[in-house]
Amino acid sequence: MFKQPYSIQFSLPKWIPDFVNETLTIRNIRNIEDRMSFIIEASRRNVLEKTGGPFAAGIFEIESGKLISIGVNLVTTQGSSILHAEMIAIAIAQRKLGTYDLGGEGIAQHELVTSAEPCAMCFGAIPWSGVRRVVTAAKDADVRNIGFDEGPKVTDWKKELTDRQIEVLFEIKRTEAQQVLNEYLQVGGRVYNSRESS
Amino acid sequence: MFKQPYSIQFSLPKWIPDFVNETLTIRNIRNIEDRMSFIIEASRRNVLEKTGGPFAAGIFEIESGKLISIGVNLVTTQGSSILHAEMIAIAIAQRKLGTYDLGGEGIAQHELVTSAEPCAMCFGAIPWSGVRRVVTAAKDADVRNIGFDEGPKVTDWKKELTDRQIEVLFEIKRTEAQQVLNEYLQVGGRVYNSRESS
Repeated sequence: MFKQPYSIQFSLPKWIPDFVNETLTIRNIRNIEDRMSFIIEASRRNVLEKTGGPFAAGIFEIESGKLISIGVNLVTTQGSSILHAEMIAIAIAQRKLGTYDLGGEGIAQHELVTSAEPCAMCFGAIPWSGVRRVVTAAKDADVRNIGFDEGPKVTDWKKELTDRQIEVLFEIKRTEAQQVLNEYLQVGGRVYNSRESS
Repeated sequence: MFKQPYSIQFSLPKWIPDFVNETLTIRNIRNIEDRMSFIIEASRRNVLEKTGGPFAAGIFEIESGKLISIGVNLVTTQGSSILHAEMIAIAIAQRKLGTYDLGGEGIAQHELVTSAEPCAMCFGAIPWSGVRRVVTAAKDADVRNIGFDEGPKVTDWKKELTDRQIEVLFEIKRTEAQQVLNEYLQVGGRVYNSRESS
């Protein structure tokens, strides 16, 4: 008889609630740089706590700067290759707001703020999520530079998104994000990859 | 104080266990066409039960034909845009086998059998999953033909995968899969999409 798990649960690290409530001293983060610094700080904490890869992402209301969800990379610690920070931030925001479409009628417009440019999977997930803006820090090249593979991405991912009316802001606080990537190497973080990647 | 779900659970439809155990009369499915027919039948059942979009996917051991996991599209019913059939099949297989890498040392080689060519997100998820082969039925054009958007995909997704040593078999039982897509329209299934898609 065939057996498989008929439900799957994944959980964020235990440090997340305290981190958010200690770091997020104001309700809404008006400034895009400050939103990114908060997300990069979450990626650093994920490294220090050894709860996953050096990546974090969040969903914010674009206009108000209200944080809706935060996700961190959990691939190695929760045992699934789909658990990139962006996927988790999107899934949690959708669960919290009760919709699979973060750009639906009657709700605020949302953005994905992520500490690094999205890999091929997360890039592909963005149009389905309903976010109207994507904000990134570390470049694709920075991520590859510490040994991570970004996967087979379209030639101009920014254009593909803007063609779909999704605004892209990039290299916001890039240097801060690069520092976290380097810290991950320094603490001996695991660089997992697909097979036969360069 | 900030609040969000700190764990997320998604569940497969209740009909799945009985479906699998009634349909899978043999332990291992030797023939690739038969594996695909089984997956297409799951996609049909997902349409008839109205538990999601007209898509199903499974992870099999390539050599033995042993089914490891089955997933169906749950976007509208479980409220998350990341819950495509392929993502679910991958996540469940990884949970079942206790690894984020289905191509790791010491385990059998695995394949993803999916009733339609992968969208941009699922395509990007494939290299991370560790599968060594991808088998598809309906073409990208068939999916677009009933109004679904496949997202911004690379120009030649098959080449990108084969370049990474992932074999691709396509148009296996395409006509059967097309029928299910049409049945979805006939029963008034919801065609959800990203914004501003063609």
